[in-house]
Amino acid sequence: MQTASDLPHVLIIGCGFGGLEAARSLARAPVRITLIDRSNHHLFQPLLYQVATAGLSAPSIAAPIRHMLRKQRNVTVLMAEVERIDKAARCVRLADGQALHYDQLIVATGATHSYFGREDWAEHAPGLKTLADAFKLRAKVLLAFEQAELLQREEERRPWLNFVVIGAGPTGVEMAGTLAEIARHTLKNEFRRIDPSRAQVLLLEGSARVLQAFKPELSARAQAQLEGLGVQVRCEARVVAIDAEGVELENTDGRRERIAARTVVWAAGVAASPLGRTLEVPLDRAGRVIVDGRLNVPGHAEIFVVGDLAAAQSLEPDGSSRPVPGVSPGAKQMGRHAARTLVARLAGRPEPAPFRYIDYGALATIGRKAAVADVGRLRFSGYFAWLFWLFVHIYFLIGFRNRLVVLMDWAWAYWSFQRYARVVSEPAPQIAASVQPSAAKSAARSEASPAQ
Amino acid sequence: MQTASDLPHVLIIGCGFGGLEAARSLARAPVRITLIDRSNHHLFQPLLYQVATAGLSAPSIAAPIRHMLRKQRNVTVLMAEVERIDKAARCVRLADGQALHYDQLIVATGATHSYFGREDWAEHAPGLKTLADAFKLRAKVLLAFEQAELLQREEERRPWLNFVVIGAGPTGVEMAGTLAEIARHTLKNEFRRIDPSRAQVLLLEGSARVLQAFKPELSARAQAQLEGLGVQVRCEARVVAIDAEGVELENTDGRRERIAARTVVWAAGVAASPLGRTLEVPLDRAGRVIVDGRLNVPGHAEIFVVGDLAAAQSLEPDGSSRPVPGVSPGAKQMGRHAARTLVARLAGRPEPAPFRYIDYGALATIGRKAAVADVGRLRFSGYFAWLFWLFVHIYFLIGFRNRLVVLMDWAWAYWSFQRYARVVSEPAPQIAASVQPSAAKSAARSEASPAQ
Repeated sequence: MQTASDLPHVLIIGCGFGGLEAARSLARAPVRITLIDRSNHHLFQPLLYQVATAGLSAPSIAAPIRHMLRKQRNVTVLMAEVERIDKAARCVRLADGQALHYDQLIVATGATHSYFGREDWAEHAPGLKTLADAFKLRAKVLLAFEQAELLQREEERRPWLNFVVIGAGPTGVEMAGTLAEIARHTLKNEFRRIDPSRAQVLLLEGSARVLQAFKPELSARAQAQLEGLGVQVRCEARVVAIDAEGVELENTDGRRERIAARTVVWAAGVAASPLGRTLEVPLDRAGRVIVDGRLNVPGHAEIFVVGDLAAAQSLEPDGSSRPVPGVSPGAKQMGRHAARTLVARLAGRPEPAPFRYIDYGALATIGRKAAVADVGRLRFSGYFAWLFWLFVHIYFLIGFRNRLVVLMDWAWAYWSFQRYARVVSEPAPQIAASVQPSAAKSAARSEASPAQ
Repeated sequence: MQTASDLPHVLIIGCGFGGLEAARSLARAPVRITLIDRSNHHLFQPLLYQVATAGLSAPSIAAPIRHMLRKQRNVTVLMAEVERIDKAARCVRLADGQALHYDQLIVATGATHSYFGREDWAEHAPGLKTLADAFKLRAKVLLAFEQAELLQREEERRPWLNFVVIGAGPTGVEMAGTLAEIARHTLKNEFRRIDPSRAQVLLLEGSARVLQAFKPELSARAQAQLEGLGVQVRCEARVVAIDAEGVELENTDGRRERIAARTVVWAAGVAASPLGRTLEVPLDRAGRVIVDGRLNVPGHAEIFVVGDLAAAQSLEPDGSSRPVPGVSPGAKQMGRHAARTLVARLAGRPEPAPFRYIDYGALATIGRKAAVADVGRLRFSGYFAWLFWLFVHIYFLIGFRNRLVVLMDWAWAYWSFQRYARVVSEPAPQIAASVQPSAAKSAARSEASPAQ
């Protein structure tokens, strides 16, 4: 009789949309699977900006991986960091020194944010990829208003009430729209010395329009909706410097400009996970692993790369090919395709046709009652697009309970204009000490009695 | 006409149960209030252990202070750390150097945990007072199981599956009961290499019985219920050392004993907030400020101390006096009494009678369907006490939305045996590097292929 340890060992690295889908697609396959992720949860990343802006709590969009897969008995889940992949030895090396051998490998470690070689900007302009990022950003945004209320002079307060979002892709647009909503609605009547609605939200984009992945007409409508929410949109603005005090821009005419802002959000660039490099195979300019129509690495039929880490082409019905976009449906479809190819090969059956990406359209939300949608032949924006966005996202949220809770949270937020997760665990003094040394000094020794 | 800035300035430090109640009791008083807290939220501390054990998300038990008080126009909320109180100058000094003058001061900064002079234990045995503590503990508990699953050898795993709770007051009992429930029910079927139900939860108590504040018969019942949940209870066990590898005990016969455990929770001692010392008035042995029947500091009718920071006496109807216990109803009643006394004095009206604490009884939960209650002449335990505990806590939770969400979370947890907030934002490598250096080394270079 064949025992479990005789079965081929499939190692999946990363439990985002691609890795999770691959694992699930192998549920009935005669393999034993090890799924490794460095965090203990699968994250529904499209809603991560809601955690960062205090609209949702973390557990609403993150589920423990081993709980999601508890019934799939052929999967062992390990929480560990993979340091490198050794193709020749067919093993991966963990950060604690363990080595895991594989027969088949699926790499799905996705992307991280990229500062285009300016890693020193990361400290001042955090990005948004993990739950830890979201908590950091939530604290930064909420404590900026607290700090402004605490300061005595208007000129000291201003930089704390300026919010700059860099990059007008879907994440940047969502962040900017939500920040404007927080300033204008959520915090209304809660401060006595400052007026939060006087906060300014500036969305900077290097290219000519927001939401470049959409048709120009939808970009225009998105910009109009953002401006309606109070966001200042600046396109063709090139960021040349970021520090603790703000951002420096170069405009198209070469003129430099400085914007004082204590809160800067980075939504401008992504780079492939560095694990791809350890495969020692050709990468594209963004660091993604170039894969064939089987999603295999050249010369290694036992190694698949799926999701944002893969530079994959979709073979269209007309025989042409086009790049697969870095979106969650792409990752899921790749994960499924890799699993099917792997199973067919192990069974000695014919492999499925080369990967083809099915495009269900694009959706981006902007803020309260504002969104744009490009679905099949339909393009629409505004309230209906927002409702559509809302239901699509709730539909795809993993786990019935999460869906219900998120729906309730949103219904409540809609009626009350409130955001219930406005809680930060950082205490006050860390902020005062680390974020604003100069302001603290200038406020020192100023005797003050608060006015109404 | 009298303008707002002519009104007496009441400064309240701390927005726990005492400070919040004082601020609310002054809603209609002709004063202007500044409420200072070092965090941005009021915390419903009785349910903090639920956040630490992944049963609730943080926003369910924490509400932004300025949101709670937004309609009370005479309050200015500041998020800041108070460094010291200067009685002579009638001002408080903030960490950023600002000084705030007061006419009346209410100090309500509560208590923190105390390691009885062994502050080096704090690193290995975190306590539970703030949200940050709860997140740290949640990560420690969940990652201990992850670490055990990752390790190869049984003797390496064992210390990760031993959980020690020190101190069998209400918090310690709740933590121990919930940890046992997590090991036996929540994580069932989710691991492939370890059996989480083989985890051991040990509750250590220095005195002769658990829940000392309760009658001995209820202590006995609580211990029986704990043991029914799988907790090992050890009374009269004196902890003499705590380090990264475990705990060392001294038994009553003087025999020393070592318990290997990677997760140790401190629930043994509280100490008054250190701000009390800056008042430079008499303190009791626990560092609490000794106050009179008006809750005033001796010789300073303009300074009130309420809540866990106060060593207050309750004047009983028979003329005797007894100490006010450090529980939330005590803090609330003191906050209200201080506010009333203050208002009467400002108005030139007779002051209320000296403080009298109304005891509504004591309640402690132990785990699923297990609790003890001592209410008036009624003493009961088990399922009914647990239901009673549940409804009392939901009733007192602040904010209607929180109540509804917590009720839903608990209903779901009850039916499913699940805990939905099992999310930690710490990535794996930090754990491998910081928590278990020796285990990581011993696992290094061990070639491994996971078994089913």
